Amino acid sequence: MTGLEEKTLKSEEIFSGKVISLHLQDVELPNGKQSKREIIKHPGAVAIIALTDDNKIVLVEQYRKALERTIVEIPAGKLEKGEEPALCARRELEEETSYECESLELLTSFYTSPGFADEIIHVFLAKGLTKKENPAALDEDEFVNLEELTLEEALQYVKEQKIYDAKTIYAVQYLQLQEALHK
Amino acid sequence: MTGLEEKTLKSEEIFSGKVISLHLQDVELPNGKQSKREIIKHPGAVAIIALTDDNKIVLVEQYRKALERTIVEIPAGKLEKGEEPALCARRELEEETSYECESLELLTSFYTSPGFADEIIHVFLAKGLTKKENPAALDEDEFVNLEELTLEEALQYVKEQKIYDAKTIYAVQYLQLQEALHK
Repeated sequence: MTGLEEKTLKSEEIFSGKVISLHLQDVELPNGKQSKREIIKHPGAVAIIALTDDNKIVLVEQYRKALERTIVEIPAGKLEKGEEPALCARRELEEETSYECESLELLTSFYTSPGFADEIIHVFLAKGLTKKENPAALDEDEFVNLEELTLEEALQYVKEQKIYDAKTIYAVQYLQLQEALHK
Repeated sequence: MTGLEEKTLKSEEIFSGKVISLHLQDVELPNGKQSKREIIKHPGAVAIIALTDDNKIVLVEQYRKALERTIVEIPAGKLEKGEEPALCARRELEEETSYECESLELLTSFYTSPGFADEIIHVFLAKGLTKKENPAALDEDEFVNLEELTLEEALQYVKEQKIYDAKTIYAVQYLQLQEALHK
């Protein structure tokens, strides 16, 4: 774990927005030479593998401007400042799907793009789902369609590239693994 | 798949670097209101689950400036302009690990952070590894330590948060799934 560190010589904030900020850094490499790093800072996020009592996975279809298309994802959202990930997971699940959950378990956390961004996603498993009567509303600029799929249907969505992002591909593989382990 | 689209009203390039570019967009939401989107464009990447003949996974430890720490990842790298993903995978595998592979199979592709970035990673499975005598060199600003782990050791690295990024967590779960399916 030693000998690989890059020392910051200079760091400049190029942009600060409502979701991300961009920083340009001059670094000293392990061999003493210099290079530049382009770094995106992000508040972090949660995502939820929510399973209904008949073992379907709850998904939301949404338009992703970065991709110029809709994809189907597990519910997810950004952490608010100082927000505890588990609370954020319950909030996002309710806002995006109207579901409350009895049990919520942290499965894993991962950095999505360590080459240029510090975004981390905490992935939770939610069970014991019930629809809330007056759920919290989505953010003003969020629009989603709800879907509930069997594992087989979700695998078909992966094949058709409707499911196409890291956290949801992970989630589908998680369900495959659980099925394989408990057969 | 309809009714969710966001129309671009204006798009401004804020920054264009050697890895990413940042674009600020005014969009029209499905309800006719307006919002802003912060978009990172990235050339895309490949990653390689490389298995040795004794079924160890080949990993590289590297310093990630965005995280200010080293993590242990499957070999990966950015696509060069117009580069075919499978050729990029062979190139990156050789540069980062000195391995050539007999077989190379595309397992999946996923967007890493669809909320703000268009980065896609193509994940390949490489088998039949042999060390090359005079392998291509790493990029000038790349420094890595090579590790070869059993599945059990890799799971321990996940627990210790040495393995901590989406593509490598996916890779470890892929190996778990293969083991569960073939038991």
